[in-house]
Amino acid sequence: MYLEIRDNVSRNKIEILKEKIKEKGYRILEIKDLGIIKIAVIGNNDKDFKILDLDEDKIVEKARVIDVPYRFSSRDFKKEDTVINIKGIKIGGNEFSLFAGPCSIENREMIIRIAEEVKKNGGKILRGGAFKPRTSPYDFQGLEEEGLIYMREACDKYGLLMCTEVMDTKNIENICKYADILQVGARNMQNFSLLKELGGIDKPILLKRGMSATIKEFLMAAEYLVAYGNSKIILCERGIRTFETMTRNTVDINGIAYIRKISHLPLIIDASHGTGVDVLVEPVTLAGIMAGVNGAMIEVHEKPQEALSDKEQTLNFIQFESLCKKIFKTFEFKKNI
Amino acid sequence: MYLEIRDNVSRNKIEILKEKIKEKGYRILEIKDLGIIKIAVIGNNDKDFKILDLDEDKIVEKARVIDVPYRFSSRDFKKEDTVINIKGIKIGGNEFSLFAGPCSIENREMIIRIAEEVKKNGGKILRGGAFKPRTSPYDFQGLEEEGLIYMREACDKYGLLMCTEVMDTKNIENICKYADILQVGARNMQNFSLLKELGGIDKPILLKRGMSATIKEFLMAAEYLVAYGNSKIILCERGIRTFETMTRNTVDINGIAYIRKISHLPLIIDASHGTGVDVLVEPVTLAGIMAGVNGAMIEVHEKPQEALSDKEQTLNFIQFESLCKKIFKTFEFKKNI
Amino acid sequence: MYLEIRDNVSRNKIEILKEKIKEKGYRILEIKDLGIIKIAVIGNNDKDFKILDLDEDKIVEKARVIDVPYRFSSRDFKKEDTVINIKGIKIGGNEFSLFAGPCSIENREMIIRIAEEVKKNGGKILRGGAFKPRTSPYDFQGLEEEGLIYMREACDKYGLLMCTEVMDTKNIENICKYADILQVGARNMQNFSLLKELGGIDKPILLKRGMSATIKEFLMAAEYLVAYGNSKIILCERGIRTFETMTRNTVDINGIAYIRKISHLPLIIDASHGTGVDVLVEPVTLAGIMAGVNGAMIEVHEKPQEALSDKEQTLNFIQFESLCKKIFKTFEFKKNI
Amino acid sequence: MYLEIRDNVSRNKIEILKEKIKEKGYRILEIKDLGIIKIAVIGNNDKDFKILDLDEDKIVEKARVIDVPYRFSSRDFKKEDTVINIKGIKIGGNEFSLFAGPCSIENREMIIRIAEEVKKNGGKILRGGAFKPRTSPYDFQGLEEEGLIYMREACDKYGLLMCTEVMDTKNIENICKYADILQVGARNMQNFSLLKELGGIDKPILLKRGMSATIKEFLMAAEYLVAYGNSKIILCERGIRTFETMTRNTVDINGIAYIRKISHLPLIIDASHGTGVDVLVEPVTLAGIMAGVNGAMIEVHEKPQEALSDKEQTLNFIQFESLCKKIFKTFEFKKNI
Repeated sequence: MYLEIRDNVSRNKIEILKEKIKEKGYRILEIKDLGIIKIAVIGNNDKDFKILDLDEDKIVEKARVIDVPYRFSSRDFKKEDTVINIKGIKIGGNEFSLFAGPCSIENREMIIRIAEEVKKNGGKILRGGAFKPRTSPYDFQGLEEEGLIYMREACDKYGLLMCTEVMDTKNIENICKYADILQVGARNMQNFSLLKELGGIDKPILLKRGMSATIKEFLMAAEYLVAYGNSKIILCERGIRTFETMTRNTVDINGIAYIRKISHLPLIIDASHGTGVDVLVEPVTLAGIMAGVNGAMIEVHEKPQEALSDKEQTLNFIQFESLCKKIFKTFEFKKNI
Repeated sequence: MYLEIRDNVSRNKIEILKEKIKEKGYRILEIKDLGIIKIAVIGNNDKDFKILDLDEDKIVEKARVIDVPYRFSSRDFKKEDTVINIKGIKIGGNEFSLFAGPCSIENREMIIRIAEEVKKNGGKILRGGAFKPRTSPYDFQGLEEEGLIYMREACDKYGLLMCTEVMDTKNIENICKYADILQVGARNMQNFSLLKELGGIDKPILLKRGMSATIKEFLMAAEYLVAYGNSKIILCERGIRTFETMTRNTVDINGIAYIRKISHLPLIIDASHGTGVDVLVEPVTLAGIMAGVNGAMIEVHEKPQEALSDKEQTLNFIQFESLCKKIFKTFEFKKNI
Repeated sequence: MYLEIRDNVSRNKIEILKEKIKEKGYRILEIKDLGIIKIAVIGNNDKDFKILDLDEDKIVEKARVIDVPYRFSSRDFKKEDTVINIKGIKIGGNEFSLFAGPCSIENREMIIRIAEEVKKNGGKILRGGAFKPRTSPYDFQGLEEEGLIYMREACDKYGLLMCTEVMDTKNIENICKYADILQVGARNMQNFSLLKELGGIDKPILLKRGMSATIKEFLMAAEYLVAYGNSKIILCERGIRTFETMTRNTVDINGIAYIRKISHLPLIIDASHGTGVDVLVEPVTLAGIMAGVNGAMIEVHEKPQEALSDKEQTLNFIQFESLCKKIFKTFEFKKNI
Repeated sequence: MYLEIRDNVSRNKIEILKEKIKEKGYRILEIKDLGIIKIAVIGNNDKDFKILDLDEDKIVEKARVIDVPYRFSSRDFKKEDTVINIKGIKIGGNEFSLFAGPCSIENREMIIRIAEEVKKNGGKILRGGAFKPRTSPYDFQGLEEEGLIYMREACDKYGLLMCTEVMDTKNIENICKYADILQVGARNMQNFSLLKELGGIDKPILLKRGMSATIKEFLMAAEYLVAYGNSKIILCERGIRTFETMTRNTVDINGIAYIRKISHLPLIIDASHGTGVDVLVEPVTLAGIMAGVNGAMIEVHEKPQEALSDKEQTLNFIQFESLCKKIFKTFEFKKNI
């Protein structure tokens, strides 16, 4: 449930109430929504929570129970889009965030070269894998920490944010030393141990939709992060698994439109994994923008055919530049239509 | 296979060659593609076809075998978009075709009233069901011929083309008396008897993708129409069946982008059936436009809540007007990006 | 809804009541279930049906409304298994019915030769296609009526029932001249025009589950046949479409077990189409028996590798004989466990 | 690749060769298959491995490259069924292994009470969750270590093996103190960090198929365990996600039959999760036996309606006893058919 605080209540009184709620064993999340201060009361049994006896100063205007299972990720809790601010770069709301980079970091030079292109074309976040989830144990597994070092250097050189995947609770601390955004991959969307630990850190999480996760399960995974303390979440639609085999996955464009209506969290589209076919990345990314995404993730490589992974779906620099121009034009068009 | 005819060959010589090919038991389809006359040689064993001995006048520049199974629906046969002209109204290429109307024709007044709205908002084709494929035998099955009469009247009054579903070979002749475009529904996409007969008529066919049809199977269904003589085909993506239950179907946005690349046939999106949720029709239709569709089909009703079918996904007149404006703006934007 | 008739009511009174119900515009289906005579009152608005004023002789013990949408196909209407008797051969209940034969009838000799094997191994019904639903218009489309003639001859020679597919309302009358059981293929499961017409004939229908049909939609398709007058229905699970590609389809073993619990209709398994892999036909067919099927359909051919269709999934005579022995042993075991 | 060793070669020479291969940086797995000693040469680049120069004693009869991606999990490597021996209890081959227990361990008494029933009815392995993967953060998350202690006590009291889920690399060491078999849940099937660490322990792993994992991806997950050193793997089919909603999942009976043909690893069926419906657990489990499984997992609870999780699919003691009798009868029947 959550509490709406009356206008013009002193900060002091609010803090006193929050303390009392915490003493009752609940976790707190304070937000401002349409000018109203709302305090989320987070806990398994939050519906049993009684405010009356706690609210001595009578600062609570309303106490509301949320009916949807993805409680604090929903617009039932927060009507306004959530905007996440990382080192001055905003994600969500009216900002468009371009995440781009290689599937895997292969060496220092390549990631620096790609970072330059990403920056040049308006990208704000560099993506790249140092720990790679590969279907086969016999495939390249990533450069691990060495990759993180190269990627950090590339980000610092071009003023980009660094987004990379975390696959294991053991690596969280180490990855946090380098990355600005931690990515949870599709295969780990319901790795609840990982989600719980990431709930405890203060870095934003890019949460990818599992390939057979329903919209509800996707938002429930986000809810794990909120419930364990981290509300800085960026959702990512990267395609679901269907019977169609001509494309690697099927981008759930309905899901994109629907999630934007029921959740206040930023949502981006990854049409590289979503389609698995380089020539489809452009039309499907632009489609995602009209469906309402707040950003896009694109796989780009200087020589896709020599990439160590995801050859088929990775754009070269010419394709990338052309797509970026269209992306920003389309987002402007969408905002004003 | 198909034959490319040399430039400046007399019509007479072409007709002579076509006759000879027909005598060999093949069906013919003559098209012009990028200024070149191409003659499709249609038949099960077309790969065994030998041109040399037939081409006495040496008017054939090249004879090409097509490697994809959806032979004459593919861009391997025809690079240019196919444009279908019906009573001066063009479908395909740079034209945007808006199909709109109710799920079912309920009475004379309602279809005339809706036709007026469709016309007013730039629609060119009125859609509506007289013979309804209903999951339950106990649900409303449609007005049948009575509905066709009302719909024809509405189309004539407002200068709209009439598009309605045919469910059975027995009804083809009768429906042809009224309709300008015959729709094959998703459940009949692989009703091969129906496809064969529709191959024999001279009216355009709107072919809806089956809910579990692969892109290949979809194009193979179109190929049935071509192989049996009818190349006036409009494809329609209306959502596929997946595990997701929050939406009625999942619009295959990847499929839209892919089909436009591999086939020259016009493709439209039906986001009403594709999403099953009225508030998703707008974002998903606009997304389809950016993915490359040549048109859209929209379910509209004066009072959706009183509709005899598809309540949840049908727009009212206010929603419809607002969407139409955005549709045409977005198509213009897409053409010029 | 349906009516339970009191014990020891004269046939005469029952007929009088049935007449009155028909006069009200309802269709009638009389069955005996656990010794009780039940009269189904079939019609869209059957829930509004009022019996009191009609039942002058007070022969109705109870009038029950059925809550599930697949009304008369459900065990809510009939608890006992339905047993269909065709020329003395029983299908359903404690009988096991083996349907076997080639995918397509290729010539007279082959179908006669296969019929001999089917008979020899305990098969009671010969299956074979004369009208073939092929994904490609360029593939073999079947021998049509010629095939029916050969198949009838083969059935008569070995005392087998003839089961063949009907794809079009136009062919019903003709196929009825030859066949004992008419098959509705997976692609036509929701060809409602076909179902309605088949509701009007007095031959049993083998109804195959559509490849993306839910259990509910499957039973609703059967309900079409009942609602339009034909309650002699044999259901067939032949695999659904999923993301798995190593097998042609995925046999819904859960669905088999579930349908047997909620419906009184006979259900058979077609593991040839269900798996698409010859070596999987045996284990999956035997699995189906333990899940409760009343019969099985097997594709068999003297030389599968030379078959004109379905090579990969068709058994040769040695595999077939071995499987048949195990099938009957397993069914006996299942009955007594 | 793998090496076949000549007959009657001294252990000493074999060990020398194994050492040399390890020195080249490969991992080794020695098995006996149909009387032949085979040595797996495990490593990303095993195809480049050259034996000639290493095999001074000429003890290698053949060196074979394996063509399927799931190399050492396949029958291309090992024809015989793998049998895992845990404290004298055998899993795989001609043994049938019954895994049973509650979804979650709720308290000491309940797990001891259930263990008694499992033992009484022929179960050899107690299953139960102490760390629970729950879709919602607001649902019961398990008793954690407290649950492990109770479960160990219950197993020791009745001489059962203990099988429980591990969700995180951090818990492996702790769970190993108690459990005999570590379960990797469906949601973690592609949690590669977890698989790699489990490759390093000497306890058997029960690997559940992911709900949208293909057969190939399932075997590749097993291959991770082998490649990282642990070949004691028990596969578990627990249903895949499809469009069907009447059942929680769809048991892939085709997959069961197929996996048994292409892999030598033991495979069990979990029809409790596979169907999600208590009355379907019996028919589907028995079906799985005919399709070839080596065991079954059943959820059982003294009062299913009071269970903290999985109420709908959990059997009570009467249902459980009746099912167990049929399971063993059916397995005997299957062996002798």
